[in-house]
Amino acid sequence: MENARIAAPVQAEPGGEYRTDAVIVGAGPVGLFAVFELGLLDIKAHLIDVLEVPGGQCAELYPEKPIYDIPALPVVTGQELTDRLMQQIAPFDPVFHLGQTAEAIAKTDEGRWRVTTSAGTVVDARVIVIAAGGGSFTPKKPALEGIEAYEGTSVFYAVRKMDAFRGKRLVIAGGGDSALDWALNLKDVAERVTLVHHRDGFRAAPDSVNKMRSAVAAGEMDLKIAKLQSLEGAAPQLTGVGVASKETGDETIPADAMLAFYGLTMKLGPVANFGLNLHENLIPVDTEKFETSEPSIFAVGDINWYPGKLKLILSGFHETALMAQAAFRYVYPDAKLRFQYTTSSTNLQQKLGVA
Amino acid sequence: MENARIAAPVQAEPGGEYRTDAVIVGAGPVGLFAVFELGLLDIKAHLIDVLEVPGGQCAELYPEKPIYDIPALPVVTGQELTDRLMQQIAPFDPVFHLGQTAEAIAKTDEGRWRVTTSAGTVVDARVIVIAAGGGSFTPKKPALEGIEAYEGTSVFYAVRKMDAFRGKRLVIAGGGDSALDWALNLKDVAERVTLVHHRDGFRAAPDSVNKMRSAVAAGEMDLKIAKLQSLEGAAPQLTGVGVASKETGDETIPADAMLAFYGLTMKLGPVANFGLNLHENLIPVDTEKFETSEPSIFAVGDINWYPGKLKLILSGFHETALMAQAAFRYVYPDAKLRFQYTTSSTNLQQKLGVA
Repeated sequence: MENARIAAPVQAEPGGEYRTDAVIVGAGPVGLFAVFELGLLDIKAHLIDVLEVPGGQCAELYPEKPIYDIPALPVVTGQELTDRLMQQIAPFDPVFHLGQTAEAIAKTDEGRWRVTTSAGTVVDARVIVIAAGGGSFTPKKPALEGIEAYEGTSVFYAVRKMDAFRGKRLVIAGGGDSALDWALNLKDVAERVTLVHHRDGFRAAPDSVNKMRSAVAAGEMDLKIAKLQSLEGAAPQLTGVGVASKETGDETIPADAMLAFYGLTMKLGPVANFGLNLHENLIPVDTEKFETSEPSIFAVGDINWYPGKLKLILSGFHETALMAQAAFRYVYPDAKLRFQYTTSSTNLQQKLGVA
Repeated sequence: MENARIAAPVQAEPGGEYRTDAVIVGAGPVGLFAVFELGLLDIKAHLIDVLEVPGGQCAELYPEKPIYDIPALPVVTGQELTDRLMQQIAPFDPVFHLGQTAEAIAKTDEGRWRVTTSAGTVVDARVIVIAAGGGSFTPKKPALEGIEAYEGTSVFYAVRKMDAFRGKRLVIAGGGDSALDWALNLKDVAERVTLVHHRDGFRAAPDSVNKMRSAVAAGEMDLKIAKLQSLEGAAPQLTGVGVASKETGDETIPADAMLAFYGLTMKLGPVANFGLNLHENLIPVDTEKFETSEPSIFAVGDINWYPGKLKLILSGFHETALMAQAAFRYVYPDAKLRFQYTTSSTNLQQKLGVA
């Protein structure tokens, strides 16, 4: 992967009014690939995502974790997958509206859709493609007073770059796989890692628990069985984490940063109010067009449901290809759709900038 | 792509008897990826293909041509795609039966399938996965006496490696895209390229026709408007190609090799005799399991049909994932199927050899 060729997302001014062919709600891998399949059919797209960067779960939850089941990519990290898709869709000039949610949709007199975001942005489009995954991921937060003031500076619920913690005193809170995996991964990067968990039992994989205990025994990291009590230091900069232990009483662990892994809550979010038929927080679609109960609104990826559905990225990719064919009929009602291959069609290759 | 990590196909002795879980008919990209999805569920697979190498169309028709629509691979050649898939499925030790076709199937008393190949090989399996693409590709051949004796040595219908023609005198016959593209690509590799076509009009893309005429004008290659008449030289080694022209009469073009591009005929082949329902030479399947009219026989990739079907490699990949879930119920009727992710499941990672 040549880094020089990775396109930075073209971000639109928040609060503006925009008109395009398709608005894609969700910029995870499936939303990104939808740009490609739509683009091959000359359908321009804008994307809206609650995160500040493209990539969805892949970028937010496991940017550095390997994925093994993307066809023809024997191993790829969430971030690399995102970068590769961004490179692949660059020829189609997608416009991103990041750090905002699609709050409301309304039909226009022209038979188009107006999508309004939490930032006051309005996108007017002929079709809507919902690629919102499991909805908006929201980390469960420790119940600590004033924690919001530290978030993003010294309190985090995910690791975007391990290097951001280099040389820092780090408290990692939690007892599951994320807490233990990151404690083990970051102990060689951070100045010091202290794992804090309320009891001496862990939900993480037994192998990780063994590794963690060995690392503690070898003096490579600390383990504190205690409850989180308070955050110390003038916000947003943490200087310590106050904890309470039955055995050893109250103390403050000196810390420059805290990572809390208390799990995630998935919220469908405002999509639930779009007026679409729902089935256990998923959107039923057909398997021919991946269209919802509302004509010209499609749903692809983890958010949709049909018999046999598997929440796999590779299934979302397939769904975007069939969806694009159906979207074409709304965007170009009078045009004839010719099915072409990128390998042999000079026309498609020109769109991709390679002919 | 690190070449060292590409696994050579493990080939079984022809004529032997084998017992496995799944037999996959067709070793194109979709057949190869089926090994991966089955393997994640502990379903072992054998593959049967008429070609001598894995990769199907990708390896046979366009090993060096770029494909642009494989998700997260902005550009990949047919051969590289094949190599990447071979690497990805290596942990599952697939067994290949190459250079033979699946001729007949029969149900056993145990409720399993016996598949017999043209090489007399017998594979006994619980499920059959037909991933035979458009069937067997057969090149249309010029009607020249004794041509079979030269085939594979000095007469070819596809380019597997451009380098095989380095320094050779080459006749390329045909007037379509393949003939002109290869003439243009090989003119700098071969000693001399002569394009032979029966009339001074070409079905190829106008841009390619212009490029070819420029190359002829610049003396970089020759164009002969004539009909193929004979092959000269002691078979299997060509020394010249006899042609007949209305304007210039008969002549022999000195040649070490000939490439003929007269198009391909796609034959469904023996799969047509498997007793499955067919629809215009395609096999109708449901979109939940991708199962055919015969229980425990599945069809994935270009050979199947369902509403909305697109003959895209990425659709075939998706189909294999859902097929594997259904195959599991036949292979392990009493087991409980847990849906897991390669990113988080230590169990799956152990199967992949990365945990």
